[in-house]
Amino acid sequence: MIRILTLAALLATATALPAQTPPPAPAIPTDARVAALRDAALASDEYAWDIVEGLTTEVGQRMAGTEAEARARVWAVRKLTALGFSNVRVEPFALPVWERGFESAEILAPFPQKMAITALGNSGSSGPAGVTGQIIAFDSVDALRAAPASAVRGKIVFIDHRMMPTQDGSSYGQFGAPRRQGPTIASKKGAVGIVVRSIGTDFHRNPHTGNQNFTDGATPIPAGALSLPDAEQMARILKRGKPVTMRLTLVSRNIGSRPSGNVIAEAPGRDRALAPVLVGCHLDSWDLGTGAVDDGAGCAIVAAAAKRIIDAGRPLRTIRVVWFGAEEVGLFGGLDYRARHGKEPHHAIAESDFGADRVWRVDSKLGAARKAEAEALAAALAPLGIVRGSFEEASGSDIGPMAADGLPTVELGQDGTRYFDLHHTPDDTLDKIDPAQLRQNVAAWTAMLGVLSGGIEQPRRIRRR
Amino acid sequence: MIRILTLAALLATATALPAQTPPPAPAIPTDARVAALRDAALASDEYAWDIVEGLTTEVGQRMAGTEAEARARVWAVRKLTALGFSNVRVEPFALPVWERGFESAEILAPFPQKMAITALGNSGSSGPAGVTGQIIAFDSVDALRAAPASAVRGKIVFIDHRMMPTQDGSSYGQFGAPRRQGPTIASKKGAVGIVVRSIGTDFHRNPHTGNQNFTDGATPIPAGALSLPDAEQMARILKRGKPVTMRLTLVSRNIGSRPSGNVIAEAPGRDRALAPVLVGCHLDSWDLGTGAVDDGAGCAIVAAAAKRIIDAGRPLRTIRVVWFGAEEVGLFGGLDYRARHGKEPHHAIAESDFGADRVWRVDSKLGAARKAEAEALAAALAPLGIVRGSFEEASGSDIGPMAADGLPTVELGQDGTRYFDLHHTPDDTLDKIDPAQLRQNVAAWTAMLGVLSGGIEQPRRIRRR
Repeated sequence: MIRILTLAALLATATALPAQTPPPAPAIPTDARVAALRDAALASDEYAWDIVEGLTTEVGQRMAGTEAEARARVWAVRKLTALGFSNVRVEPFALPVWERGFESAEILAPFPQKMAITALGNSGSSGPAGVTGQIIAFDSVDALRAAPASAVRGKIVFIDHRMMPTQDGSSYGQFGAPRRQGPTIASKKGAVGIVVRSIGTDFHRNPHTGNQNFTDGATPIPAGALSLPDAEQMARILKRGKPVTMRLTLVSRNIGSRPSGNVIAEAPGRDRALAPVLVGCHLDSWDLGTGAVDDGAGCAIVAAAAKRIIDAGRPLRTIRVVWFGAEEVGLFGGLDYRARHGKEPHHAIAESDFGADRVWRVDSKLGAARKAEAEALAAALAPLGIVRGSFEEASGSDIGPMAADGLPTVELGQDGTRYFDLHHTPDDTLDKIDPAQLRQNVAAWTAMLGVLSGGIEQPRRIRRR
Repeated sequence: MIRILTLAALLATATALPAQTPPPAPAIPTDARVAALRDAALASDEYAWDIVEGLTTEVGQRMAGTEAEARARVWAVRKLTALGFSNVRVEPFALPVWERGFESAEILAPFPQKMAITALGNSGSSGPAGVTGQIIAFDSVDALRAAPASAVRGKIVFIDHRMMPTQDGSSYGQFGAPRRQGPTIASKKGAVGIVVRSIGTDFHRNPHTGNQNFTDGATPIPAGALSLPDAEQMARILKRGKPVTMRLTLVSRNIGSRPSGNVIAEAPGRDRALAPVLVGCHLDSWDLGTGAVDDGAGCAIVAAAAKRIIDAGRPLRTIRVVWFGAEEVGLFGGLDYRARHGKEPHHAIAESDFGADRVWRVDSKLGAARKAEAEALAAALAPLGIVRGSFEEASGSDIGPMAADGLPTVELGQDGTRYFDLHHTPDDTLDKIDPAQLRQNVAAWTAMLGVLSGGIEQPRRIRRR
């Protein structure tokens, strides 16, 4: 009632509102069994916390292509097998591996002091002596791009920016440009190094790493991220108007091709002829934290949801759980899966890779012919407070290329307001996961699987709506 | 009115309330000039932010006895002189200096992974090869004390605990014991090293350093603090029940006696025969952050308050601002001041060394004969929401020994709820200071100086109330 009155008041006074509110969702009754599974998952969690706690405690960080990621695969196969999944297997692939070494950034003049820094993925190595240069500052990649090479040559580029938290994470795309493109542009203009304000939203001395690649024939140069307190300190120092000199030491090495792999497990469907529903996450993490929110949580959520379906009975369609390898450093796992299986039919693909805070929105791209199924999915999620989003657009990280290929895709959008406080930092640890919100995620994915897998222990043919 | 009704409702229903509420404070009118100065300080800040911003930006960390602390003294003398203080001077002293080097902690078995660690002050050096040992865990210093040496010998001690935030900071005293006493006890029982859960309340990968001294003839051993996420990770790993082995590398060295000093500045009183009011802070900081809340803020607050008095006119009594040196590593500045001036009369001494969050309570120990003055002080602070605390107990950090000697002392207690999120960590940076709360602090200290300095441009004798 209060909401109705408020809306009426808004409509009476606000002229900027769209002329029409969206049409109400059709009333689609959710299968009672699915609703019960969803609500049970919301009420208690027997699996998800256990998975993310175990993976982050017993393995910890699991940088792609390292021995730690290999241990994570062993752990994953054992865990998924113990949970009762079928066809548990590793599909191996290889990737070139970059390895972090000693890191330091030091203002030499005018105000000598150390700053908190971490190297970006594929940074050039400064060697232990470091590189020294005067700072030249830009407030965006575009400003760097517009600068003459003569102004940049021999200097250390600093790119500032002001990324703010967004619920849907959309600020990451735009404000990630300094990390993704800055190093290549700086290198091509002759800079001896580059430091960017971390692509993040917190104010802790934990810089955010992340991948970048030197393209267009650019020579690798040392490329690092300052923590936000340090980036703001740098801005204050620069504001004094004196030349600022930094010694930047980012030691790293490329150790060549190393093994990785995707860990795959299934809840076999009653009708093996039907296309499977793929639910994914990525098993690898950056090396700074223990990869709890990125993406141990995602693996916990999708496996726990699939396990709850197994516990309830057999789905009509096979549910395929994929814990992708080597996502952070270039979607290697997703691309390997696509190369092997991307032409096979999939009833739907979906990935959880945005932390463990609550799902607030569902998007899907199942095609016009499956609008009723998409509506049924949205209806099953609505009791969790999840908003109906787009029916024409959905994607994911590892599954992104396959979604772009046109495979039917579902996206359960998590609240990203605090995600970039933690993303790619040492602070990505278990304590950041809220068990209540983790349960809501499992409930959402359980409901999604309940709807998309075509009914648990129901007759062989899915009911047409 | 709402508050009265609520109190009445409480009194009507609650049986656990004390039989008597405290007597109401006597109605002491605050000097209108003091009230106006206080309210102006609350409304706008011309000095405090500028001081703490300048000190933390242009000097940064200023570990006691280092070249950085020396630069801070130069900066301080220049700043206090520029602000118009008189008799700006440095009183030098020397202290033995311990210097941090390379730090790392690594679980070797059963789950290999790195942990975030920092050395405690005066830690023994492990040398670059580190020490390796099995972890033996205790949940308190008392449990370690009770353990037989045979159980500890050759091992690395881990002390866990559960310090929680408190408004008055009292949890620090009790829960700081693992840091202060743990290393000595562990060493005397033959441990090869010790790691404690940081004496802090945040969950970031920024461990809290802090001072400790090996006493009772204990041999220095490597002694470090794990960040809270790492301490909880350690507890989870230990819970698996397998022997846990750590390699602990804490390199450090003692570099001998080095200079430090107290920076002193005065607002001369109209009557030089009267004892001064001392307001202090400490200029040095730990080496990990930029010493913004500990204690750049304190120096900013007391100097800004004194400066506002200077701007308004001449106080009856001299106001002496002391930016103590080398507090963190053993109160060297406070002890040097005490040795030089501790026998001289002081009208009152007070120190701001608990961050920049709002003052919530005033305690004083001015003696029974000065109860009216203490009441007047409390009355002048009440409009800032500051609670009347004790009239028999007050202290401070550098001024603590002099307070214990019996010098008249005032304590403006700041809200410490989030102080131990930042204390002694890399996260102690400018962005943590809330300008509005900083202003409230300056307003409180301005009011305090207005009352205790005996009236600004008033007749020579303070009015007896």
